[in-house]
Amino acid sequence: MTDAFYDVLMRRRDVRAEFTGAPIPGDVLNRVLTAAHAAPSVGLTQPWDFVLVSDHDTRSAFREHVLAEREVFARSLADERNETFARIKIEGILESSLGIVVTYDPERGSPAVLGRHAIADAGLYSVCLAIQNLWLAATAEDLGVGWVSFYREEFLARLVGLPEGVRPVAWLCVGPVTRLQETPDLERHGWRRRRPLSAATHLERFGELNTASR
Amino acid sequence: MTDAFYDVLMRRRDVRAEFTGAPIPGDVLNRVLTAAHAAPSVGLTQPWDFVLVSDHDTRSAFREHVLAEREVFARSLADERNETFARIKIEGILESSLGIVVTYDPERGSPAVLGRHAIADAGLYSVCLAIQNLWLAATAEDLGVGWVSFYREEFLARLVGLPEGVRPVAWLCVGPVTRLQETPDLERHGWRRRRPLSAATHLERFGELNTASR
Repeated sequence: MTDAFYDVLMRRRDVRAEFTGAPIPGDVLNRVLTAAHAAPSVGLTQPWDFVLVSDHDTRSAFREHVLAEREVFARSLADERNETFARIKIEGILESSLGIVVTYDPERGSPAVLGRHAIADAGLYSVCLAIQNLWLAATAEDLGVGWVSFYREEFLARLVGLPEGVRPVAWLCVGPVTRLQETPDLERHGWRRRRPLSAATHLERFGELNTASR
Repeated sequence: MTDAFYDVLMRRRDVRAEFTGAPIPGDVLNRVLTAAHAAPSVGLTQPWDFVLVSDHDTRSAFREHVLAEREVFARSLADERNETFARIKIEGILESSLGIVVTYDPERGSPAVLGRHAIADAGLYSVCLAIQNLWLAATAEDLGVGWVSFYREEFLARLVGLPEGVRPVAWLCVGPVTRLQETPDLERHGWRRRRPLSAATHLERFGELNTASR
């Protein structure tokens, strides 16, 4: 049982190129959203919302914006990095079956959110926990998920009609895939390699590395 | 296999009162940290670190700080809410087996982090995805996790010696538990009730509720 859980966790990938575009059955989508909605949240505020975007015009408009932002980033790179970046696909907005815009409403449960008085970002953290639940549940259902982050929040907020104060946190491309890659795209394309866990674990204080761990 | 995955996801709770204090076997801790480290991250930066805190003095000092912040929050509440809050345990810092401070290093992979040029918080989001992986893996291993957020970042940063610029994102209490509650503590104690998923899902644009979902 633990093995089945870890299998899902390790198979999960950030998908760009492998979407088939086939529809997501309604019961599957409901299970995936139910998983997201079961995430923990500061003060039990559940400050997330999910905007399900199928509409072709909305997705096309978002994709145009993302491509323009891709250019902004490309222009910031030195030549060699730019060549590497040019090989990397950063979104599957039109090829995926569904866009899910995940948002954060800081007003939910306000003013006295239990656990947020000292840390303003705590509500935003909750939304991310819901996103990871969604991502893993989608993986368990043999769907792929790709998080697109080449956008300006104001653009996406206007595009899907977010009320004043509600922030978009992610555009997730979701849908059936031909396969999940074994190695993350950015590593396969030579952008960056993963660091060992041993470099990320510290004993008692930061900087005291945990040499017993891998 | 999907059932085993959803079982873990739905059993997960934010634990305060049920820690036994029994040690966490080394191989179990390694699997849990490996799960956290397998999370997706913007530009493959893996901007998280894990500081494992066993030391009693460090934990006591943190707990004193948290209790003082609890008072700050309590004073902000109206009488009736304050009575409800008084019944709620907000941390298991000393009763749990281990404190894990999860941190965010915005410099990792800088300056050109792929996917972060337009969204400054994207790196912070990655850290939260790692936290949710850790939380679920711990649940799969029959451990409990409690996220403590009644603290000032500067205090915790100093306490565990974070380098300039590295932010604490969470103090997680981790360890074996007598049981996991079925209902979240804040709901059991009458602080707040969960909202239905149907209220959180929208079709195409925010405000267009998805009445087909639950």
